Amino acid sequence: MSEKAFQDYYPDLMSYCYGCGRLNEFGLQIKSYWDGEETVCEFQPRSYHIAVPGYVYGGLLASLIDCHGTGTAAAAAYRAANRPMDSEPPLRFLTASLHVDYVKPTPLGIPLEIRGKIQEVKGRKVVVVSRISALGEVTVRGEVIAVQVPEHMIGELVKNSRP
Amino acid sequence: MSEKAFQDYYPDLMSYCYGCGRLNEFGLQIKSYWDGEETVCEFQPRSYHIAVPGYVYGGLLASLIDCHGTGTAAAAAYRAANRPMDSEPPLRFLTASLHVDYVKPTPLGIPLEIRGKIQEVKGRKVVVVSRISALGEVTVRGEVIAVQVPEHMIGELVKNSRP
Repeated sequence: MSEKAFQDYYPDLMSYCYGCGRLNEFGLQIKSYWDGEETVCEFQPRSYHIAVPGYVYGGLLASLIDCHGTGTAAAAAYRAANRPMDSEPPLRFLTASLHVDYVKPTPLGIPLEIRGKIQEVKGRKVVVVSRISALGEVTVRGEVIAVQVPEHMIGELVKNSRP
Repeated sequence: MSEKAFQDYYPDLMSYCYGCGRLNEFGLQIKSYWDGEETVCEFQPRSYHIAVPGYVYGGLLASLIDCHGTGTAAAAAYRAANRPMDSEPPLRFLTASLHVDYVKPTPLGIPLEIRGKIQEVKGRKVVVVSRISALGEVTVRGEVIAVQVPEHMIGELVKNSRP
């Protein structure tokens, strides 16, 4: 694994995401890393992330698939361009679509492993498939179609983020 | 609209869901109602439910599609059986799969409307398609395949929920 998480390279302005922004103090702050050709993230749901007692809330699992997917997409784009993740201009991705299959109930109270694979990099689009495991058993499979944030939107963000 | 939300009929044991459980004090506690043949839910994301500044986090939008979908599935099952929602035994649904298309960015800071339509009721499976609108404009479309919680799982829940 690399030492610094993908999300720690995001520019400040794009680090308020509830799922993965290091500057969102109320958020999940997930951290994703390369592990060979795959990407990996470990996350322990909080005690209140309940679906039914004893099992993890599906919307949280969808959020993990989502943010690990966009983080993986960004890392893949840098790797495809043979660029380090701290080089300019920043490459950031948003989710165009998200699909999640709940294969079996995910037990609450233990760390989960989210593993992503890059299925396709085509122009500004990256497709990432991920799986979530609990105690080595896959409980969720998901796919994210991520698209690179257009330059003009980054401009609008700067405008919106002014207090 | 009916006066009492679908979620307010859920048995206590199944009311700890982070998205829709009335007994989860840290959760979103969404409320869904009939509106003719459609179902509707209004929800205002919190200030920290950020994707990028000014816009709503996709994982939260997925959660709204998810819980409004399972709530709609339950309501549809009672309606199909011509039973009131407070009759026994309780009919509750879990999500087998979730699909979300982010049509355009969803502005943060205003109430959102989630509207669901029942696409299919087949045995223990209900398919619900939903759309999320901000200021009358659809920003998200989603689909939930919901399956009725099997009796044996309700038994396990009772066991798990004991302190």
